[in-house]
Amino acid sequence: MIPTTPHSVSPAETFLRYASERVNAALETLLPSETSVPAELHKAERYSMFAGGKRLRPALCLAAYEACGGTGDAILPAACSLEMVHTFSLIHDDLPCMDDDDLRRGRPTNHKVFGEAMAVLAGDALLVQAFELVANTGKPECVLTLARSLGSQGMLGGQVVDILSEGKVVDLETVDYIHRHKTAALIAGSLVIGAQMADAPARVVEAMREFGYKIGLSFQIVDDCLDLEQTSEVLGKTAGKDLEDHKATYPSLIGLEASKRRAVELIEFAVTDLKTLASDETPGFPRIDTTVLEAMARYIFTRVH
Amino acid sequence: MIPTTPHSVSPAETFLRYASERVNAALETLLPSETSVPAELHKAERYSMFAGGKRLRPALCLAAYEACGGTGDAILPAACSLEMVHTFSLIHDDLPCMDDDDLRRGRPTNHKVFGEAMAVLAGDALLVQAFELVANTGKPECVLTLARSLGSQGMLGGQVVDILSEGKVVDLETVDYIHRHKTAALIAGSLVIGAQMADAPARVVEAMREFGYKIGLSFQIVDDCLDLEQTSEVLGKTAGKDLEDHKATYPSLIGLEASKRRAVELIEFAVTDLKTLASDETPGFPRIDTTVLEAMARYIFTRVH
Repeated sequence: MIPTTPHSVSPAETFLRYASERVNAALETLLPSETSVPAELHKAERYSMFAGGKRLRPALCLAAYEACGGTGDAILPAACSLEMVHTFSLIHDDLPCMDDDDLRRGRPTNHKVFGEAMAVLAGDALLVQAFELVANTGKPECVLTLARSLGSQGMLGGQVVDILSEGKVVDLETVDYIHRHKTAALIAGSLVIGAQMADAPARVVEAMREFGYKIGLSFQIVDDCLDLEQTSEVLGKTAGKDLEDHKATYPSLIGLEASKRRAVELIEFAVTDLKTLASDETPGFPRIDTTVLEAMARYIFTRVH
Repeated sequence: MIPTTPHSVSPAETFLRYASERVNAALETLLPSETSVPAELHKAERYSMFAGGKRLRPALCLAAYEACGGTGDAILPAACSLEMVHTFSLIHDDLPCMDDDDLRRGRPTNHKVFGEAMAVLAGDALLVQAFELVANTGKPECVLTLARSLGSQGMLGGQVVDILSEGKVVDLETVDYIHRHKTAALIAGSLVIGAQMADAPARVVEAMREFGYKIGLSFQIVDDCLDLEQTSEVLGKTAGKDLEDHKATYPSLIGLEASKRRAVELIEFAVTDLKTLASDETPGFPRIDTTVLEAMARYIFTRVH
């Protein structure tokens, strides 16, 4: 049973608001100012960074950090880096040579405003600064997590297969590959980095990764459903674009209802695993408090109603 | 006096050959194979990585490492990462929305062979893997050096100002800014990472950075001169492209002879600083052997004859 609370503010929404306020304040300080050289690049970076994103990845990173007993602001640069790499991927994905999108979150895409060259460079610069921020934490294991979540066995690998699959008949296995790499890998990485920043034991880090892959895949299936069901106005991007681009999605292969069932199922599996983790104890490490993570997992599905 | 040895193999060329053999063997192992998924991406990456580059940045990294007493193969992943980020920058620079180049090192550019989308992604993937390799050394200070050499205060900043300056009348200060950021920052970073990997003291690391900026700026001035003087066949890319693109260069602002004088002067300053460093001693740290670095610095200038 997924509780839906369309008319009241859920604990997940409360946490998302708390997380995004902290993350937005940190980003304001961490991103180069629009007046510093090269100003045009910094403007292009900030344009897409402050375009109304929900800060889901930083919020999951923060939730994992706090679930593992982490406190204070030390997590913020790493949390911000996750939004930077997410934004990097959106800017490059929207380019004419990729998905060729004109709208993102209800506003013209980066290259529509700053030109293609600046959009490529703004994406590159966000990716580089993300690594700088994570390196600055002094934890090479977090840099490794970020790199592996993004590389050819992570997000970029998914993007490649997505592009190569356009207009082709593909099976569910391929769609699964694309979703797990293009979307779930970075969501899993966000949770892993949160746990690593809290010095969580390996067992907990691995459980966070698994939890992240499950909710990440569910998140993307829900996105596929939303693309079919909602209007462009609500989505803030061109609705029905997947169909128009002949993109293989969950609903196009197994139908809308079966896709929703799969999305719920993944959340249930993820939450069950999390509860097992919460009942375990590692000597010398605080018990994991999974309340917020569970709420965040369920929130992902409620978006579809 | 710059010794030129056009008809015999100089110590720098011998070192470059030694370094590139080691680096090429390491790259062969480190880069994902062309048969692993996503194969198309890995093919695109390898196409540009094995396109006949001289491996100057890895060689400088290796030279700094060995000058500081470092031995063995532990330096190779970091050295390879420098060639990866250099190649990333070439692939993105060649894109139609940037410099729009069809030829690079005598072969069609990446996007001409694999398409623009794959070229953008191959560049991104090389950048990400470079950070993975450096993170794997367990030295966050090297990740920081790499990020700062590349970011908006490094290479990408230079690329932005370069693009914004095209077709405009710019002064020598701007050309200097572009060259210092677009070219010299990564060359300096290569030397710094070599020194950091050898656990060199801060004084030595900073001296390597300064040395790198000077030879890096000289290198780019020499490149500007070569673009004017040589044929496309020798260059392996379209000659006279700077002039055609209305790019501001040293020779276009101060003339060919004055540019060459400036390039020599920078090398002389760099070598003098290096000799001062070699005569210093840090307790508990071996004396720096600057023979190879000096030869490499002088080699940069001999290319122009």
